[in-house]
Amino acid sequence: MLNFDNDYSEGAHPLILQRLMELNFTKQHGYGSDEETAAAKAGIRAACGLAADEGDIYLLSGGTQTNMVVLSALLHPTEGVIAAQSGHISVHEAGAIEASGHKVLALHSEDGKLYADHLAQYLEDFARDANGPHMVQPGAVYISQPTEYGLLYSKAELTELSRLCHAHGIKLYVDGARLAYALASAHNDVSLKDLAALCDAFYIGGTKCGALLGEAVVFPRETPRGFFTYVKQKGALMAKGFVLGTQFNVLFKDDLYLSIGRQADELAQKVSAALEAAGYELKFPTVTNQIFVVMTREQGRRLTQQVQISYWEPLGETHDLWRIALSFATTPEQADALIAAL
Amino acid sequence: MLNFDNDYSEGAHPLILQRLMELNFTKQHGYGSDEETAAAKAGIRAACGLAADEGDIYLLSGGTQTNMVVLSALLHPTEGVIAAQSGHISVHEAGAIEASGHKVLALHSEDGKLYADHLAQYLEDFARDANGPHMVQPGAVYISQPTEYGLLYSKAELTELSRLCHAHGIKLYVDGARLAYALASAHNDVSLKDLAALCDAFYIGGTKCGALLGEAVVFPRETPRGFFTYVKQKGALMAKGFVLGTQFNVLFKDDLYLSIGRQADELAQKVSAALEAAGYELKFPTVTNQIFVVMTREQGRRLTQQVQISYWEPLGETHDLWRIALSFATTPEQADALIAAL
Amino acid sequence: MLNFDNDYSEGAHPLILQRLMELNFTKQHGYGSDEETAAAKAGIRAACGLAADEGDIYLLSGGTQTNMVVLSALLHPTEGVIAAQSGHISVHEAGAIEASGHKVLALHSEDGKLYADHLAQYLEDFARDANGPHMVQPGAVYISQPTEYGLLYSKAELTELSRLCHAHGIKLYVDGARLAYALASAHNDVSLKDLAALCDAFYIGGTKCGALLGEAVVFPRETPRGFFTYVKQKGALMAKGFVLGTQFNVLFKDDLYLSIGRQADELAQKVSAALEAAGYELKFPTVTNQIFVVMTREQGRRLTQQVQISYWEPLGETHDLWRIALSFATTPEQADALIAAL
Amino acid sequence: MLNFDNDYSEGAHPLILQRLMELNFTKQHGYGSDEETAAAKAGIRAACGLAADEGDIYLLSGGTQTNMVVLSALLHPTEGVIAAQSGHISVHEAGAIEASGHKVLALHSEDGKLYADHLAQYLEDFARDANGPHMVQPGAVYISQPTEYGLLYSKAELTELSRLCHAHGIKLYVDGARLAYALASAHNDVSLKDLAALCDAFYIGGTKCGALLGEAVVFPRETPRGFFTYVKQKGALMAKGFVLGTQFNVLFKDDLYLSIGRQADELAQKVSAALEAAGYELKFPTVTNQIFVVMTREQGRRLTQQVQISYWEPLGETHDLWRIALSFATTPEQADALIAAL
Repeated sequence: MLNFDNDYSEGAHPLILQRLMELNFTKQHGYGSDEETAAAKAGIRAACGLAADEGDIYLLSGGTQTNMVVLSALLHPTEGVIAAQSGHISVHEAGAIEASGHKVLALHSEDGKLYADHLAQYLEDFARDANGPHMVQPGAVYISQPTEYGLLYSKAELTELSRLCHAHGIKLYVDGARLAYALASAHNDVSLKDLAALCDAFYIGGTKCGALLGEAVVFPRETPRGFFTYVKQKGALMAKGFVLGTQFNVLFKDDLYLSIGRQADELAQKVSAALEAAGYELKFPTVTNQIFVVMTREQGRRLTQQVQISYWEPLGETHDLWRIALSFATTPEQADALIAAL
Repeated sequence: MLNFDNDYSEGAHPLILQRLMELNFTKQHGYGSDEETAAAKAGIRAACGLAADEGDIYLLSGGTQTNMVVLSALLHPTEGVIAAQSGHISVHEAGAIEASGHKVLALHSEDGKLYADHLAQYLEDFARDANGPHMVQPGAVYISQPTEYGLLYSKAELTELSRLCHAHGIKLYVDGARLAYALASAHNDVSLKDLAALCDAFYIGGTKCGALLGEAVVFPRETPRGFFTYVKQKGALMAKGFVLGTQFNVLFKDDLYLSIGRQADELAQKVSAALEAAGYELKFPTVTNQIFVVMTREQGRRLTQQVQISYWEPLGETHDLWRIALSFATTPEQADALIAAL
Repeated sequence: MLNFDNDYSEGAHPLILQRLMELNFTKQHGYGSDEETAAAKAGIRAACGLAADEGDIYLLSGGTQTNMVVLSALLHPTEGVIAAQSGHISVHEAGAIEASGHKVLALHSEDGKLYADHLAQYLEDFARDANGPHMVQPGAVYISQPTEYGLLYSKAELTELSRLCHAHGIKLYVDGARLAYALASAHNDVSLKDLAALCDAFYIGGTKCGALLGEAVVFPRETPRGFFTYVKQKGALMAKGFVLGTQFNVLFKDDLYLSIGRQADELAQKVSAALEAAGYELKFPTVTNQIFVVMTREQGRRLTQQVQISYWEPLGETHDLWRIALSFATTPEQADALIAAL
Repeated sequence: MLNFDNDYSEGAHPLILQRLMELNFTKQHGYGSDEETAAAKAGIRAACGLAADEGDIYLLSGGTQTNMVVLSALLHPTEGVIAAQSGHISVHEAGAIEASGHKVLALHSEDGKLYADHLAQYLEDFARDANGPHMVQPGAVYISQPTEYGLLYSKAELTELSRLCHAHGIKLYVDGARLAYALASAHNDVSLKDLAALCDAFYIGGTKCGALLGEAVVFPRETPRGFFTYVKQKGALMAKGFVLGTQFNVLFKDDLYLSIGRQADELAQKVSAALEAAGYELKFPTVTNQIFVVMTREQGRRLTQQVQISYWEPLGETHDLWRIALSFATTPEQADALIAAL
């Protein structure tokens, strides 16, 4: 059966497995002090336009872990993080942020993006509120690129969010779980260099972008104090850090990370066009590797007999929202088979 | 240069990499609901003497993470965990247990083992203390098999610790980061079935026993309520859970886990005998894959010119303690080369 | 200048100070094991219709503390608490609930009350959501009686909320910071006995109802395990617990608690009627000791030259919401002076 | 029956109750922004030799609460606090420090005092340990003046501890739950001015020194960021802060705080001398308001028939340690009666 259920169903890009094989019996230092990790960091720094001594990079194992470790390290105990109501940290991380002591200050958003005017209003209201000292202080803004619905922030939008955050003395953090699919999108104008210039921290997703596991956190300027020990304390420091280092070293050689994203994005465009041609309604424009399609109960029933996709949520009494996800491993043949099944 | 620095310097047993390769493009379910994980759990259950519907098994990514997630799930907020002063959770996990809200109630121990008479004394003193309700309640006992110094609890010792814990209504938890080297030791009489029968929770270490990463937690009887969500909340749930499942499935086929331990233990015996024959003093008898050797400054200087080993701690003014660690990947040739270098 | 700023501006009911004087040099046991505390608990039990051996009562020092200690004790680590968006724990307790590890699951509400149909919808949606195990589990419902806007839940409403909670296996907790003003209200039909019958925990507020400090937590049926030690751990156990015990003993003798509430409520009715007669608009009907009045900028400026009241929030471009609060210490003369100032 | 059980059995110094009475119906601002609190702070600043704009003072309600709030605010998440094994935070606060995420790094001590040479050794060992980044970082030192056994640090000792802490970049915090009895002791040479000069934070105990409740935290130089909101978040901010302010305002007028300590200390000297004259053995020299006396089982049985005192701990098979505590309220007549009972 065809499977477009998600983008973490397959192993890793073959070049990654090949490199893990080659190095398997090479003795490497522990806890990320190995040469592969060093090379990975150099590659990421170069891609981000950071000098060799600029910023810091840490390799962690998963997305929820990374969001929790980084945000709780960025925030003062009395601070919370602003996010769209539908943000991953707000809904689907089992309260990891709250379990680390911080409130997620959720702002309503129709499409899952956090808009600057909405943020500005919130920050100004808070600044004027006489009860401010009795309330959770906004300490950071969380957004994801692409968002949970596969949408993108433009460079202009990101710049304005960054300006607003820094004008109010708060941090901007970007969750890049699927960043490859954003960077490679034809609709995207935000580069890694832009992220490094505009954010206080962001992560470059590996798990959903062709690695077995792993996310690369970038602090382009200032790293939270004692961060290495903090990572250890949160149970997020891998003894065999070179397993992460090797993977990101491969991903950041010869633009592999971008080419992984490009293939999935292009196939998503093709599938998306076919869906529209076949009369399906898209909930959002498809700009990365995820397609959100509206179907009647009957359409859904029929399509899921042939293809495994993700049920998202009901839309009123007669329709449902479904997600079709393409991954680093999706082949043109699979996309064609899906199109044929429509 | 020869390297006996630790047991997490190399990748994984070749059979593991081979299986990851084979399955790389097979679509698998996320978050540990895949078939490889199911097979791994079946293999572990069988090895532990558990029926198919008995107990629960969870695959996590590293040791500190596992200790923190499991212990904090086992303990009530007002409870702490008893451990030897030199226990890993007490010293070398950056306060992960305390960061999750629980005190490590450290008991003094000369050799790093927790002895039943000492534990009994502590528990009886606590029960008699009128200030008990103003104090941290002992809720669990933590031991590691083998211990941080490579020593083993005998079945008689483990049985007595288990009896004591359960008589006082507290949990017994065993950290098995290097369990393969314990199980395979000629000096060992504690099987996986014994652990399952005597403990409330334990973990079977992968990272230091031939896997790229991964630890398998076993709850032989009762699993803490909501544990799946708790694992997610702590950032310990891998999207590609099948990466862990595949590895443990391989490790628990054809007794691979035991054979990995056996080879390292046997080479450690050989190296150990050579050290003693060459006049070196061992701090503890060698019974697993770690050798703790006492050297003068001059001996240390000379040996570390040829072999990379781990400095442990000073022993007075003239001697030091060093650790020689063998791993799943150590070859007989490497052991011979080390012996030649003595 | 007249002062109707809040209900915690004055000390304590004179009978309380008198009793503290009388007992000042009587030796009493520490940590709440004294006779005054025992008598206070007996008085509260009687008022709640609880037998001498039924339920448990704890005296804590303040409202935020009480909400945090009780809710975090009631909730499992993976659970959050449902509250109206404007609930005190959601907005004005500086993130105390999140700092203890739990998400406040905020539901929108126009008037600050949590309505059963809205709650039912939330709980049913959650039960149907396939991502449930990746989300914060609803573990309790928080409401306040009266609410932050001084409104009351009817017995029918409370009964339905209770039924819903228990049908879904979650706890119902009522914040009674101003409970005296609810119990004594002519608009109220919820007694202490009803609270004890319908809730899993609630607190009877002292600080805002005539005590120097103190809140009495009632667990009518089941008390969270190890609660005494938990209170201590959270820094909420007073050495001189008899200071709290004495006050609640006085408050629950001869219906003093009710009579304190009645006087303030009746004066609030009088002031409220005068406001309406003078053409002021009330945002909500006045049913307890707080009056929420809508004023133009000019009205506000003029009134606050003579009376100190609390600015609440802007209502569009031309009007503001203000709060007039009466307390246990407000005299008929003060109410008349306020009316004269309108 | 005579009662020397502890120093928190009676209410408050009569001048405190009198002042609470006088101000009872005066409208005061909430949350510590009232005039009594301002006056109390001015009095404390003067006593500490701090200028009007120097340092910060906060009034909290109890000792465990104060230790937990202040230490967790002073420490970075990866830091722990060094204390003597018998320190109050280490043993008798139900794990409040660990529950706020921080390890208590307990150092052995025969008499409960932390000695500079022992501390120096610990800090130097830590600085040299290659595993340092994997361990809890020492971030503060906790001592109490007087200690749990009623002993005093001399100015020379405190100066050396302060020098050591600051040389290693860590904070020095002093728990002054019974500070009145230290300051007034004939054996003491450490003034409030010395504490302000040498410590980063300390608290002046009210609960055990003549107040109904309350402890005054002094940050002589730097206050932890966002401390007001932090206090609120921890449930430690009283709405009627003036109840604390009034009490400390009284205590710091006309040296009342010192005179309270002096009377108890002098009576303790008298009782102590009588005990020795009667052949009783003192475990420690009596220098403040607590007397630690060694008694045979028979002596203990006989004395406790006439006087209520605190059982401390067994001393071998035949003797026990008991504590006799005098308080602000102990009269010369009561001391004489105790002496007569020996």
